[in-house]
Order: sequence, then structure tokens, then C-alpha cells
Amino acid sequence: MTLDSTTPSSRPPLSPTPRSTLGRLPERALLDREALDDVLDAGLICHLGVVVDGAPVVLPTGYGRDGDTLYLHGSTGASSLMAAAVAAAVCVTVTLVDGIVYARCAFRHSMNFRSAVIHGMLRRVTDRQERMHGLEVLTQHLAPGAWAHVRGPSEKEFAATMVLAMDLTEASVKFRAGDPGDEETDIERGGVWAGVLPVVTTFGTPIPSGDLDAMPTPDYVADRRL
Amino acid sequence: MTLDSTTPSSRPPLSPTPRSTLGRLPERALLDREALDDVLDAGLICHLGVVVDGAPVVLPTGYGRDGDTLYLHGSTGASSLMAAAVAAAVCVTVTLVDGIVYARCAFRHSMNFRSAVIHGMLRRVTDRQERMHGLEVLTQHLAPGAWAHVRGPSEKEFAATMVLAMDLTEASVKFRAGDPGDEETDIERGGVWAGVLPVVTTFGTPIPSGDLDAMPTPDYVADRRL
Repeated sequence: MTLDSTTPSSRPPLSPTPRSTLGRLPERALLDREALDDVLDAGLICHLGVVVDGAPVVLPTGYGRDGDTLYLHGSTGASSLMAAAVAAAVCVTVTLVDGIVYARCAFRHSMNFRSAVIHGMLRRVTDRQERMHGLEVLTQHLAPGAWAHVRGPSEKEFAATMVLAMDLTEASVKFRAGDPGDEETDIERGGVWAGVLPVVTTFGTPIPSGDLDAMPTPDYVADRRL
Repeated sequence: MTLDSTTPSSRPPLSPTPRSTLGRLPERALLDREALDDVLDAGLICHLGVVVDGAPVVLPTGYGRDGDTLYLHGSTGASSLMAAAVAAAVCVTVTLVDGIVYARCAFRHSMNFRSAVIHGMLRRVTDRQERMHGLEVLTQHLAPGAWAHVRGPSEKEFAATMVLAMDLTEASVKFRAGDPGDEETDIERGGVWAGVLPVVTTFGTPIPSGDLDAMPTPDYVADRRL
């Protein structure tokens, strides 16, 4: 979801560093920004990694993307993980599971997936206009179309919400798709089913709140698709 | 998925520490082991957080649970993140997204979810029997029923696979469920739809591998449900 129009060709390429290429199977890596955008726009949540007292903490949280900036938010309360994450190195990972890969041997079982791993620092947004813009981006990602219809933040709510921004500069995208990669000898032997069981994420039927007076479900909810 | 039978009452309670209670809304925390088991058994992947050169790295990976032990696996290759994670502090997080919570104001938009956050150290399993058991647990979580039908690991495959174990001792479970929690004044004003759009994850129709001779899809694939 991009609020600003961006010309893809004018955007700098992703810059993988050793840590953003850590891991195996580099042939499954994608380095173009459009692949990163696709994963981020298709995901609902990210997993934010922060180092607290020398140990990693990984928590799920919402996010939003505007061009080459990722927005996160949190409470301004002192116990918030976001407070610990400001100006520290963080890692944000978004993963989409597409299928279970059944192979003829245990070793080659796998998953079809798309994932984006972003490294960087979180900048606390202090400018009032950018903070409000960040909240709009976050709300639009979580609930596209809602921002235009709901009550905006009160001063108290605005003050209670920390908005954080992260440059989409150091990132990598990985994926696996398609059939299992079985050994020839296992294929020839036969007798074992092999293939992909798709994992499908969809939206169900909207459930009106118990305190809602009867009203039609708006299109931005009823027609939402993943 | 538990291979060993375990008497719940004989199991120690979860032991949250400050880091496993980090964050807001403690009323959304569950401390019992059955809640932890439910989230771990319902999830398909976890997000593993490791500190590398002082910075967090968060990667998606498969897992399996046997009683109060979590198993992970990785390549024995030097570039494997798992190699960096052995005997270091790690965090494993499993998140299930259940719905998008549409509120009458931007501030109270939320997500319905269940999540488990586990802190601890990864122990590299060296005992041959436990390594094989760990691989079975992992395969059973990824593809229940497959282990009995597929070719087991060859010596070469076995040597290439690192099995890691983590005690499910320091963990916390959080969730959100149900309607938005709107302000009375927003409810009275009316005019804005509020409720929950369920997020539903299901398995699609199995896709046989292109190199598979015609055979019926086995029940352990065709009848699998999330």
C-alpha cells in the first residue's frame, strides 16, 4: 500500500549486507524493490526483533509502508518495547506461508513462502504532520478505507501513540515456490505422494460489533481481499 | 502435536521474567501451559530471533513440539543462522492472526491474535537417537503423517542437518479476541461500522508434484485441517 506515487526506476536498489544475506540457499533471494513491496503489502503483521539486555526479543506488531519508509507504532508508555527500540538496531521480518511441500524423503520436506527481512534503526517521528501521516499509513494497512470514515485521534490518543519510521534500505526478500526437489532415485522408486498443500489465508464474513446499531457492512470491509 | 503423553498437572508452570512480560496490556497474558501448547500446535512457522554482531536477526523457520521441548533444525553449514544461535540467548515467537478489529476511531483499531513468545537458549542435540526423534517431531509438525510413509534421512542427509532443542520454560502467551473496545461517545454518535473481519487460514486443494505418477492423494494430506 503506497500513498505516495513512486517511480520504481528512480528508487535505489536494495543493499544487502552480510547480515541481510545470512543463511542458506542464496538462489532463493530476490533483490529488487518491487519484490520487497509485494511482500510488505501482502502481509498483515511483522515480527520486530530488538535486543534487550543483550538478548533478542521478537514481538508481532502491525506496520504500514509508504514508498521506501516503513512505519511502526507503539505506546509512549515506558514499558513499551518500542521505547527500547528507538535508535537501536532492529530487524523487521514479514513472512507469508504459501504451502506445505511434501517430498518423497523427510529431508526434502519444505515450505513455500515469501519473506522480507529488513535491518536498520527505528527513528521516532516527532514532526506532528509526519506523525499523523504515519498513523494514516498504519491504519490504511490494517484497515484499508477506514481512515476516511472513523474518528481521527484525539489530542490525548495522539500523545499516547509513538510513531516510528524505518528506511527500507537494507533488506532482503526470499521465497520458495513450486514442487518438491526430490532425488531421482526417490522419484523412480515411486509409491510416496509428493506435491504441495497450499496454505490459503482469506477474510471470513464480517462480524458486526455487539454494540453496533443495524447498518450495512461498508464496501471497504465487505469487499476486502487478501 | 505431542508424541509423548504428558500429564498436564505434573508440568511446571510457565515462569515469566521481566523480559517475557515486556510490553503492554498484561490483562491479555495467559500463563498456563495448555495455552502455550495450543498456540504452538496451531502455528506452522515460528520467528527465531538471534543476536548477531550486536544486532537482532529475525528469520522464519519451522519447528516442532514434544511435551515441554521445542525442536528447531538447520543446516550444519557455517553460514547457517542456527550455528550462530547455539548456546546463545534466542527468542522464538509464534503468532496466529485471527481477525482485523474495526473500531469507530482510528486509535482503537486492532487485531485479534494469539501469540507465544519463548526465551531461552538453543541446545544442539548430539545424541543420535534424540536427533532422529527431533527430526521426526519437526516433520510431524510440518507434515503430520508423512514420516511413516517417506524415506528417512540417509547418513549424508542426517549429517547435514543440525537439530536444536529449547526448553519451554520461560514463555508467555498473549491474545486478543472479540469486539472493538470503543469509547461510549463514539458508540452513541454512531454512523461508523465496527466489528471484526475474521482472518481465516485454511489448506487448499493438494497439488501433486509434476513428476508424480498418478496416485490417489493420501488421507494424511487430503484430510489435513488447520
